[in-house]
Amino acid sequence: MSIRIGIYGYGNLGRGVEAAVRQNKDTELVAVFTRRAPESVKIATETAKVVSADKVEEYKDKIDVMIICGGSATDLPVQTPKLAKLFNVIDSFDTHAKIPTHFANVDAAAKEGGNVGIISVGWDPGMFSLNRLYANCILTDGADYTFWGKGVSQGHSDAVRRIDGVKDARQYTVPVEAALEAVRSGSNPELTTREKHTRVCYVVAEDGADKARIENEIKTMPNYFSDYDTTVNFITEEEMKRDHSGLPHGGFVIRSGKTGLNGEHKHIIEYRLQLDSNPEFTACVLLAYARAAYRFSQEGASGCKTVFDVPPAYLSSMDHSEIISHLL
Amino acid sequence: MSIRIGIYGYGNLGRGVEAAVRQNKDTELVAVFTRRAPESVKIATETAKVVSADKVEEYKDKIDVMIICGGSATDLPVQTPKLAKLFNVIDSFDTHAKIPTHFANVDAAAKEGGNVGIISVGWDPGMFSLNRLYANCILTDGADYTFWGKGVSQGHSDAVRRIDGVKDARQYTVPVEAALEAVRSGSNPELTTREKHTRVCYVVAEDGADKARIENEIKTMPNYFSDYDTTVNFITEEEMKRDHSGLPHGGFVIRSGKTGLNGEHKHIIEYRLQLDSNPEFTACVLLAYARAAYRFSQEGASGCKTVFDVPPAYLSSMDHSEIISHLL
Repeated sequence: MSIRIGIYGYGNLGRGVEAAVRQNKDTELVAVFTRRAPESVKIATETAKVVSADKVEEYKDKIDVMIICGGSATDLPVQTPKLAKLFNVIDSFDTHAKIPTHFANVDAAAKEGGNVGIISVGWDPGMFSLNRLYANCILTDGADYTFWGKGVSQGHSDAVRRIDGVKDARQYTVPVEAALEAVRSGSNPELTTREKHTRVCYVVAEDGADKARIENEIKTMPNYFSDYDTTVNFITEEEMKRDHSGLPHGGFVIRSGKTGLNGEHKHIIEYRLQLDSNPEFTACVLLAYARAAYRFSQEGASGCKTVFDVPPAYLSSMDHSEIISHLL
Repeated sequence: MSIRIGIYGYGNLGRGVEAAVRQNKDTELVAVFTRRAPESVKIATETAKVVSADKVEEYKDKIDVMIICGGSATDLPVQTPKLAKLFNVIDSFDTHAKIPTHFANVDAAAKEGGNVGIISVGWDPGMFSLNRLYANCILTDGADYTFWGKGVSQGHSDAVRRIDGVKDARQYTVPVEAALEAVRSGSNPELTTREKHTRVCYVVAEDGADKARIENEIKTMPNYFSDYDTTVNFITEEEMKRDHSGLPHGGFVIRSGKTGLNGEHKHIIEYRLQLDSNPEFTACVLLAYARAAYRFSQEGASGCKTVFDVPPAYLSSMDHSEIISHLL
């Protein structure tokens, strides 16, 4: 029998989960829940329903795992605890500083409902976190480095769009190759913000806008750009649509450490992602952890978990002997 | 209280575990067990004992986890089940084809003794296996690639040493950069053995030996070299000692996959290790999993497990709230 999946929120991430379900034969999409008028939302899965978010309770016994695809700022802190009372849930909560509070809230709600919640699933937090943990447990004496990109930062793109005279903008975060190579050499460099990443902006200006002023406003913007070497390219609307409509991302988690009685041997552990579609990759991670939540639930577990608490085998649709034979 | 560690077998790997214990403050080395005369074995830890392997039973209640550092060919298939009746055990069994049988034997013995055994721990099998599993669970539609090196292959070095006229030899396995780049491009190339790795040998020939014959015997050796492009360099004993006395290794696990309703987006997941010392790195992984075995045992678990069955948090000496705050 398939694992019955619900998708709560149907933006880029929700559509990614829908596509992922189609690639995983042991899962089946039951319904997409939306705050919009259901009849206005068209989905790709003919066998699934589009349902108003108000009616989610009616699906309590029809869905094994609800994958919540809202935003971290205002949606998930409310939605995940609320839904964890009714369903096993997965979310991609990514406000690092607020994770302990979110964990506690989801834990209480999930225990009350007898359900399992797995939070902060995706690639960062998520796969990057896992790689930080594994590498730290192996190389006790070492240093961690995280690089992001090349990829689109939605927050930085939005910040540029708010500048007067900007019609559209896309911002790429780009890791500095020389910094990566310094880390890979095992020299444990101390790197400033400016040394690790550059920022590259593509901007469509409004007719007659002062491009020099826009460029200056971008490059001097505190928090977002002033600590970085930033390049600003003005392009046409057609070029924006043709060359910058995707949402690629990725990055590197590297730990550099020493072993031996006198720290005489250096080691580098590197994990790298190159993603054509940030939301679709995140969705694939969410679905793998939905399988784990289902399995925990079948075993009678309840409460909140993170990627750190999930035995890797729980993510697989293969049985244990297959995994041992084929992947170990 | 520290986790009390025993080391069974004191070669390169055993010495690596000893060094790792010194880097992990929550562990303590109690004793090294050896088949040699104990008085002939000198260890680096003053507070630990060197004990004859015959007397291992006397340590039944003095050791929390025994890390078995024997070889996979003949030692571990016997030692791990035997010791699992007495202790929680960790090994690095790496004969891929025989893992299911070894798992079953250790499982039965560990259950009989009420202990936990974690087998096939290290980097391949071990961290590479974990990365294959995670990447397969995320990118369902894709292809796996494993590259080894640059690193010393002991088996291939031994094979060259057996050739008449060879005094000493060291063989490096080297991944082909062009093949790596083809995989990273997402083109899912089909790669032959020859396209993935080259082999580089450093040979000290005996005085008057026929170097042309030796080179030819190496390059045409079935299984070991005939399917590869092999380079043979003749060097002096001094050069061998000066430049080739280390045991570096490493490699790459890459999964290339597609997502989207029509597979329109490509993704690359890459895990890379660069190790100055293969045995010391392996030892660090063994010690992290010793911590996990101890924790499973404290919870009352018994039987055989693999890296696939261990929640990542069990590897850490940090408590759960610290992990969530600092690494997620």
